[in-house]
Formats: sequence, C-alpha cells, structure tokens
Amino acid sequence: MNDTPIRRSVHAYFMQRALELAGRGWYTTRPNPRVGCVLVKDEAIIGEGWHERAGEPHAERAALADLERRGGSARGATAYVTLEPCSHTGRTPPCVDALIEADIARVVVGTQDPNPRVDGQGVARLRAAGIDVVTGVLAERCAQINAGFNQRMRQGRPRVRVKLAMSLDGRTAAANGESQWITGDTARDDVHRLRAESGAVMIGRGTLVADDPSLSVRLAGEWPQPLRVVLDSHLEISPSAKLLGLPGDTLVFTASGDRTRIQALQAAGARIEQVGTRGAGLDLAAVMALLGEREINDVLVEAGPTLAGALAQAGLVDEYMIYMAPTLLGDGGRSLLKLPGVQTLADARQLVVDAIEPVGADWRIRARPKRSEDEGD
Amino acid sequence: MNDTPIRRSVHAYFMQRALELAGRGWYTTRPNPRVGCVLVKDEAIIGEGWHERAGEPHAERAALADLERRGGSARGATAYVTLEPCSHTGRTPPCVDALIEADIARVVVGTQDPNPRVDGQGVARLRAAGIDVVTGVLAERCAQINAGFNQRMRQGRPRVRVKLAMSLDGRTAAANGESQWITGDTARDDVHRLRAESGAVMIGRGTLVADDPSLSVRLAGEWPQPLRVVLDSHLEISPSAKLLGLPGDTLVFTASGDRTRIQALQAAGARIEQVGTRGAGLDLAAVMALLGEREINDVLVEAGPTLAGALAQAGLVDEYMIYMAPTLLGDGGRSLLKLPGVQTLADARQLVVDAIEPVGADWRIRARPKRSEDEGD
Repeated sequence: MNDTPIRRSVHAYFMQRALELAGRGWYTTRPNPRVGCVLVKDEAIIGEGWHERAGEPHAERAALADLERRGGSARGATAYVTLEPCSHTGRTPPCVDALIEADIARVVVGTQDPNPRVDGQGVARLRAAGIDVVTGVLAERCAQINAGFNQRMRQGRPRVRVKLAMSLDGRTAAANGESQWITGDTARDDVHRLRAESGAVMIGRGTLVADDPSLSVRLAGEWPQPLRVVLDSHLEISPSAKLLGLPGDTLVFTASGDRTRIQALQAAGARIEQVGTRGAGLDLAAVMALLGEREINDVLVEAGPTLAGALAQAGLVDEYMIYMAPTLLGDGGRSLLKLPGVQTLADARQLVVDAIEPVGADWRIRARPKRSEDEGD
Repeated sequence: MNDTPIRRSVHAYFMQRALELAGRGWYTTRPNPRVGCVLVKDEAIIGEGWHERAGEPHAERAALADLERRGGSARGATAYVTLEPCSHTGRTPPCVDALIEADIARVVVGTQDPNPRVDGQGVARLRAAGIDVVTGVLAERCAQINAGFNQRMRQGRPRVRVKLAMSLDGRTAAANGESQWITGDTARDDVHRLRAESGAVMIGRGTLVADDPSLSVRLAGEWPQPLRVVLDSHLEISPSAKLLGLPGDTLVFTASGDRTRIQALQAAGARIEQVGTRGAGLDLAAVMALLGEREINDVLVEAGPTLAGALAQAGLVDEYMIYMAPTLLGDGGRSLLKLPGVQTLADARQLVVDAIEPVGADWRIRARPKRSEDEGD
C-alpha cells in the first residue's frame, strides 16, 4: 500500500512541507544538516518542526514538542523527515528513541544520512522497534539541501563552490585592473547570500592584496558570518589587511614557518595553519581536508584566476557560480582562470551547465565539472 | 468597435496565422520582406497566402489567388496582412490595387512598411478607397520577422549579426590555435540555419587564412546559399582559397589597387570591391553601405577577434549570436574580441542580453548593444 501512486503523492505532499521547514534553518544549522519534520494523523498535520542550530533540538524532537504544545498525541501518527533520524547521541540524544517513545506508527524518510555514525542504522532501529519505514520520498531534493554536509560526510572535505564574476567575454577585470563592480547590485546581494550559507569563504593572497576585501555578509538584518580563509604560501599578507580586524575568525593557510610573520599575523587576529605545497602552490587537497576536520560543509571560493585555475586543475571544484555581466571588456581584460595545462581543445575542462538564470541585469551560470557518468551532446 | 478587447483578440488570432504563413518564406523572400496574408469572412479563413520569393506574387495576391481556387469571393472580407500592402509598382503591381479591386471591406495591418516607396502610402490609399484599415496588430512581432529588411530600408545598411563561438571563459580557440569545433553538432546546425537566412556571410582575412572555410549552408535538403564576403585590406588572400571555387558569388572588399592580385582573384572567381580605410582597417561603414546597395538585408559575420572588435568599436553590430560551450580553455586561449579602446570598466561596451537558450549541450546568447533607451539594472 505504501507504493501506490496515490500513497506516493500523499507522501510527496507532506515531504514537500518538511522540505520547506528544513529551509528555515538554511543559514543556521551548520555544521549540522538542514532537516524538517512533519507529524501527520488522518492526513492532517498535527505537528511541525525543523532543526534551527547545533545544540538545539533536531527536527523530529522540535515537531514532537510542537505537537505537545498543541495538546495532541503522536500515537499512530506518521512522521515525515527529510533526513534519516539519527541513531547516535551527539549534542542531543538519538531521534529514533524519541519517535519510538512517542509511539509513532510510521516514519517516511527523504534521504539516508551519510553520516557514518547513522548511515542506515536509524532506519534499522526504527524497523526493529516495529515502526513501518518508507524511504526515498523526494530523495534527490532532500539530499540536495545538504549537498555540502553530504560531501563532507562522504569525502571528508567540504563542498567547494567557486564564485567568479566576469564580462560576457570572460574577463574579470578591465585592462587597468579595475574589477569592482563588473556585476550589478542584485548579483552582489546574491553573492552575499552565498557567503551567508557557506561555513567558510576563501581567497588567495592575490585577491587580498588587490581588493583588501572584508568577505563579510552585508545584507539588511542579522546574518551568520562565514569563517574567512586566506591561502598565502609565503605568508606575505599584511597584518593590516582589513579582514584581520573584523569580528569572527580568519584562518591563514601557509607553507611558511617564518616565526616573525606568523607572530605578527597572530597578533593581528589571524589563526595560522601549516600545510605542505604541491606544484607551484599550497596542497589544496590538504587545505580542504583540514577545513573538513573543522566541520566546514561549504566553502565559497571568491577566486582570482590563479586560485580558480589551481582548484580546477586539482579536481577540487564541485560547482562554479559564475556571474556574467552584459558587457564586453575585450582582450586587454583579466582572464577568468589560468589553466597552464590546457593547450588543445582536447585538454579543455568539460563542464555541465545546470542553469543559467537572470540576476538583475546579469546572469548566473551554475556549472560543475563533467564526470564520466554525465551525458554528452 | 475595432478597439474592443474581443475584437483585438480576434485580430491577433488571425494575424498570428498570417505570421505563420509569412514564416514559410523565411529563407527565400530576400531581398524582399517576409509577408503573410489571411482573408477572413464571418470569422472563417477563406484564403491564405505568403510571399515566396522576389518576382513572385506578394502575400495579398497569393491569398486572393487561393480564395479564387477555392471558388470564394473577397467582397466584404477582411484581409490580415503582416506588413502594410505596397502602393508602388515594383517587380509586381501594387497590392493595394488588388485589394481594392477584390472589394475587400477591411484590412488589418501588422506593421507599417519602412520602404520609403510605401511608408504609410499603402494605408492611405486603402482608406481613400473607403476601406476600413486597422493598424498595429502584433506590430512588434510583425516587424521583428523583417528586422534586416527594416534596418536596410531605414539606414541603408544590412542588419549586422556577429556570430561567435566560445568556451565558458570567453575563449574562441585553444592555446595551440585549434578552434574547430568548440561547440557541438546542434550549435553547428543552428549556425548553418543562420547562414541560410542571411543574404551574406562575412569573414576577415585572418579567419580565411586560419580556417579556409566554405561558408556554405550544409544541412539536409535544399537551402539558399548566402553571398560570401571577405574583408581583405591588402588583398593578401590566396586565389586557391576554398570558398572562391564554390558555386555562388564571393565578394572581396579591399583597399588595395594591386592589379596583379585583383586579376588573380578575379580569375579564381572573386568579385572585387574597392573601399577606403578607416583606422587600422577597411571603412566598415562603407562596406555595409555597399552591401545595403546590393539589397543585402542581413549579414552574418563569422568573425575572429579582430573583425568582431572592429565592428563593435565602429558601432556596427546590431546583434551578437554567441555560442557558449560548457568548457574552460583558460588564459592561454584566444580572446573573443579585441577592444583596444577599452581600458577601464567605464569603457566597457554595454550590452542587453535578450535570451540565453540551450542549444544541445551548448548555450546561445543573443545580445545587442545597449542604447540610451534601454533600462539599467
């Protein structure tokens, strides 16, 4: 009966609501995943909840609390959860226990938790307790809202998104070096929301020297600020760099052991992390692994052409977010990315474009590296 | 009564059909405009026609002939015509006379004919004959299907569309010079249709030397071939260039008076046209004016970076058709266009992007230079 078309569409209807609830924690749950939960009895919603931030109740417990406030009972109800309920004790006790104790009859799960401490055990424990479990409802969308978390759980490193802004002819700055602002205000706000949803924002030394950016989220209202990450092989940035003086943490990755420079930057507020080198620069895979250890789900790289190219060549880009302005800057402008290894058309890095959408007068291109499983033209 | 919402929607309904009929002459009417005509009595279509090619009947006469074949009478009918009926004798006699003689009661016109020999006189003559005339029904679309013709009538030069193919990072060739094919088969066919709908296809000497292209329409079935145009200031192209040996005309614009070279190219099949120079190259405005004199409505420029940049700087580009492949070629690749005058962001050439659409695995960007009347972000 769980698999009739009508039953599937009822499941999808309530899971859609659970997804909306999950979205309320969009900017606040990290390093935890975004999760929503809906409790349903007789095809009516009797309780709703979502995970708001780490240390606070998970979505299932939030929904049960909502139900209790409304004076209802979960006995015999169905719980719709975007992510498999946890079976381990983290900052809070396991959600499967809460569901079992509440006498829930059925749990409908969006997608399995890739956290190795859960990874199917939540579903197994529910079933062992006699609860009917349905899995895979709107699975792709339920997984997509936690793309960064899932990536970190599976590969130990954050999802890496490279943000670039260019003219229609692929130039990130005019011949005289000017780059602020190629794109308009709407695109700028869009980038600030990307920053807000990322655990870390990363730049290379070149961008820091050229732009002295703050990397902060500057939007109306209260927004979480990402960790600021600077890659600086030789520790050449100045202790007077603007971002070192801002509230929140700045992490500088370097291969340098120069005590004087390290102490100067530490005194200016930076935290220094040593990594090895690889080719002409830092070992970028090691950098990303260290960010994974710090529970960063998503890194937004606001890259210049050197760092963007190095990440592409290292196979470390999961998604490109390219803001394209309706302008032509010509061949004197700065290139989008440096790819010294690309000499022929066959060498070209193949992408899959997922969407090109208008953002004000500009356009946002979402693309990702083409994998062997992607279809060709 | 002609302006009630219901009446306007009835008019739009039949004009839409007239537009479809006009489209049947898409590739064949040049240098004439594309025109469709529908004859309607008691809200039923009693005759249909379109202009097929120069020297053959105009749409109105074709529709009246269709009506006659069906054995009907035009007395009291309404004629829907995408373009104002002609009032002058060209290759065929005036269409207004045919409509008056057929005792048509009303003529609904899409858009006014910008041809200075018509330009409102068709409508005036119909009204003088006691025929009710309604104008401006689906006017924008009726004008758009003859954008090139309209441009030539108003400004004496063809509509200039610049076709470019690039990687996502704005590169038209790999570092080693390879450029065929950055984009896929679907985009290639799309370009061949653009060639087929253009009176002329233009390249510069650089592209001829690099690619030795044929510029022909290579699609299944019979297609009209455009005039081939090569810009070659110093007459340096070889008489053995592939396109000189193909059926149809090749026109070479040059500033050179070198008799030996001229005769060698003429012997190889080229027609030579002399123009002056302007800056570093040919006087491009003069080239376009000469093509206008030859009744070319649309020029498709398959430009390298030098010619594309020169046209942009001369303000002679009406539309960019940019095919963007989902690849990255890096900073070693060839630039989309050379704009030596652009040094700062304020110098950037501003565009308006009308559409970005998928074409196979590639994307087609339709953009045009921003005019003062276009809105900002």
